[in-house]
Amino acid sequence: MPETHIVRSGTRVRLADLSTRADDFHDDRDAAEREFRKLRKELADLQYALYAEGRRKVLVVLQAMDAGGKDGTIRRVFKGVNPQGVRVTSFKVPSREELAHDFLWRVHKAVPGTGMIGVFNRSHYEEVLVVRVDRLVPEEVWRERYEMINDFERLLAATGTTILKFFLHISLDEQKKRFQDRLDEPQKRWKFSRGDLDKRRQWPDYMAAYEDALSRCSTEHAPWWVIPADQKWYRNLAITRALVARLRGLNIRFPDPEEGLDDVTID
Amino acid sequence: MPETHIVRSGTRVRLADLSTRADDFHDDRDAAEREFRKLRKELADLQYALYAEGRRKVLVVLQAMDAGGKDGTIRRVFKGVNPQGVRVTSFKVPSREELAHDFLWRVHKAVPGTGMIGVFNRSHYEEVLVVRVDRLVPEEVWRERYEMINDFERLLAATGTTILKFFLHISLDEQKKRFQDRLDEPQKRWKFSRGDLDKRRQWPDYMAAYEDALSRCSTEHAPWWVIPADQKWYRNLAITRALVARLRGLNIRFPDPEEGLDDVTID
Repeated sequence: MPETHIVRSGTRVRLADLSTRADDFHDDRDAAEREFRKLRKELADLQYALYAEGRRKVLVVLQAMDAGGKDGTIRRVFKGVNPQGVRVTSFKVPSREELAHDFLWRVHKAVPGTGMIGVFNRSHYEEVLVVRVDRLVPEEVWRERYEMINDFERLLAATGTTILKFFLHISLDEQKKRFQDRLDEPQKRWKFSRGDLDKRRQWPDYMAAYEDALSRCSTEHAPWWVIPADQKWYRNLAITRALVARLRGLNIRFPDPEEGLDDVTID
Repeated sequence: MPETHIVRSGTRVRLADLSTRADDFHDDRDAAEREFRKLRKELADLQYALYAEGRRKVLVVLQAMDAGGKDGTIRRVFKGVNPQGVRVTSFKVPSREELAHDFLWRVHKAVPGTGMIGVFNRSHYEEVLVVRVDRLVPEEVWRERYEMINDFERLLAATGTTILKFFLHISLDEQKKRFQDRLDEPQKRWKFSRGDLDKRRQWPDYMAAYEDALSRCSTEHAPWWVIPADQKWYRNLAITRALVARLRGLNIRFPDPEEGLDDVTID
């Protein structure tokens, strides 16, 4: 599988040039759904092997605008994977204790241990996204963070973590549709907050901030993917493809059994 | 649904009197599988509501002898539940830092937050099981722990946590079969360790320790269930039944939306 949607290290990303809709598959949803289910099963097997092997770690970072599909991605892609081997961390507004430390402190605490897949729903990238757009710290502070993030991710990669970062790329129109849906369906209304509209008005600022993060922090050891995410089925498929391809590449092996078990009898 | 297999508070448990095989269902596996899948779906819905409501927590404790099925239970029962709402903690041999604190310290750190289902694969009960059987601390130390555990669980219950504790009850014969299976299948052999046989020889000591834990720590606020677990299909069904019944009983409600959303238009 060629790695589509990956941001090659050193590329300057322009989000306006990248489609928010699938440009392959010719919208053959049935074939896509079949491939997705097959890959998702393989993902469960690969996770089991990763867990059994107990030597390496996988970190999946999800970032998106509101209603971009982070929650849905987690629910759909990781359904069927043993919850014992997956740990999801949702990063919210930092607590007072977290703010009393450097911005990577709470993130470092949450990285996956051996055999585990860690999933970040939002991440340290918020520190160069909302923090930048809302001017929560001065520019000289957030400007330095790209390199700090790269160094941090290099540490994780060098110590056995495979890192995959996905930006779920939706259009302004698609966000409108999804917000409207939340407003219209009584069951979904609780998800909507008026604050979501403020962020929507900052869309161009967010796109600029994302472009910098994607361009500066897509590295060999921790690449970004820009996933066309207006169509949920394609988003799920593209992410699962990328994940399975990388996990296959790890050539995970089951651990060797203890020596001399041939003589064992159980009373 | 009547709560079968529950240990009523104040009951003295004798494990030899409790079957390790299903005594209902007349072994109608198809009907059982159908009910299991239906309940598992409902469990996913209930978890979603719990997460949306964001006020309460659920803690599931799993204890069993080796090969008793803790891992399989987690994989099968929680498959399909959004991994974002479930956090599994496997308690291993305590680290040096953990041993430098009281025995509930690491457990307290791992309890679920609002909206979450926490699953403990092994738990604080090891402190009155392996610790007692292997005499890792003197009797006067572990003797005091039952009350400490009850107090701790009362705190969790009083602050919004629904606690369900499951002992997966297998027979000595069934364990033998499962160990043999691990030895015979090359794919499973890595799971087997010679140390497992030492623990097997301590079976009566473990049963006595379990009987004390189940009898002394099955409370109104944190009951134990003794689940017949020789048949995996029945084990999964019985646990899912108990979980769904308790979650239904919480009458979880979706949160109210913000006021005045009727006038909102999205630009």
